[in-house]
Amino acid sequence: MTYGLGIITENGLVLASDSRSNAGVDRISSVQKMALFTVPGDRVIALLSAGNLGTTQAVVSSLRQAAGTGNMERDLHAINTMYDAAQIIGSMLREVLSRDADFVRPWGDPNASFILGGQLRNEPLRLFEVYSAGNFVEASPRTSFLQIGESKYGKPILDRALTYQTPVTVAAKLALISFDATIRSNLTVAPPIDMLCYTRDSFSADQFHTFTETGGYLDELRAAFAGGLSDLIGRLPAPPMFNA
Amino acid sequence: MTYGLGIITENGLVLASDSRSNAGVDRISSVQKMALFTVPGDRVIALLSAGNLGTTQAVVSSLRQAAGTGNMERDLHAINTMYDAAQIIGSMLREVLSRDADFVRPWGDPNASFILGGQLRNEPLRLFEVYSAGNFVEASPRTSFLQIGESKYGKPILDRALTYQTPVTVAAKLALISFDATIRSNLTVAPPIDMLCYTRDSFSADQFHTFTETGGYLDELRAAFAGGLSDLIGRLPAPPMFNA
Repeated sequence: MTYGLGIITENGLVLASDSRSNAGVDRISSVQKMALFTVPGDRVIALLSAGNLGTTQAVVSSLRQAAGTGNMERDLHAINTMYDAAQIIGSMLREVLSRDADFVRPWGDPNASFILGGQLRNEPLRLFEVYSAGNFVEASPRTSFLQIGESKYGKPILDRALTYQTPVTVAAKLALISFDATIRSNLTVAPPIDMLCYTRDSFSADQFHTFTETGGYLDELRAAFAGGLSDLIGRLPAPPMFNA
Repeated sequence: MTYGLGIITENGLVLASDSRSNAGVDRISSVQKMALFTVPGDRVIALLSAGNLGTTQAVVSSLRQAAGTGNMERDLHAINTMYDAAQIIGSMLREVLSRDADFVRPWGDPNASFILGGQLRNEPLRLFEVYSAGNFVEASPRTSFLQIGESKYGKPILDRALTYQTPVTVAAKLALISFDATIRSNLTVAPPIDMLCYTRDSFSADQFHTFTETGGYLDELRAAFAGGLSDLIGRLPAPPMFNA
């Protein structure tokens, strides 16, 4: 399994993915599921993958090979809109699946999905989810986050606290709490967590960090959140059956 | 769908269930999924149901018909341990399924599961989950809650904040936050929420409350929690990529 999360707000994007790859419960490894296609000053495109690792790596490798070739059907460095980027990823995914899916199916699910977020010069911030069918949907101020993979455990904190107006720093904290909730509840989602915080019109992918398993910021966040949560719950009014 | 939750702590039990019954998304009704079998001063037994409503109502009706008959194979008022109660429920479930399942399957899933919690005089607090196979597991200080139905959205808050030492009042608040998270994220779980808070050795089911859709305590809790959560997240340390 995997957990991938993309958040779009007024002033930026937060994109994050875990690193667990597993075939069953006893064949586990660590892989990076975020790929960046950046031309500093011109474009930042981040791609998160979920699903069959053979499929997702084939798509990402094909995108890397095509980058800079000038082929408008495949080159993420050449295209002019994020919509075109989503179309390229969808059609590459279809290519890979039409080549491999029938061979893979007896061994497991060949499908994959992607979250695509970023900004091209002359475009606003944009965030898409590309389905295994190769079609895609775009996030909006009313749906300010998209998830792939194990999405349920990490959803409540986002539903409760995230809006389109949330500052990027706060959205990043919410994303990490969402990951922590997922990691606690599902063994097949695990750190390191790769996270890109992109500020609107910066055309830079410098606000990137990899959060490792133990020690450091994740532990600090988890402890501060647990302590604060327990104080908060203590202060909430008692349910009516205790008032008699 | 349904959400049913049983919590066991040192000093009490919290049992809660929602009221949504649906066949598809356009045939929706409201039903009570908590049944109480109480002999004040002697025993309190609460049963939460999930799954096929025909199946669960058949089990509950059979239990009601048998209560007080003195039949040790079926009478929840006569048996001497909660383990025996779990066995009765499992075997009634098997009876109903062996009678109905083949007829129901062409129309939908006939299966059902239960959470059973309570206390009999001369026994400690006990909490069980009865699976659709009719077998069952018991909660313990290390697994202090059990869930049936739509369990994922409501799990993170319990994983983070609930322990065996949590006071019953606090466990009740956590249960309601867990329900609120589930209701927000899954349309097929809905109020009213029935909740029993049982205090150890009280042999009374008086701490019972039905939380309705709007107005009153649920709204108050939701607003206080959302406000407190947003303050708490604001106070958490900023992720390292913002420190440069």
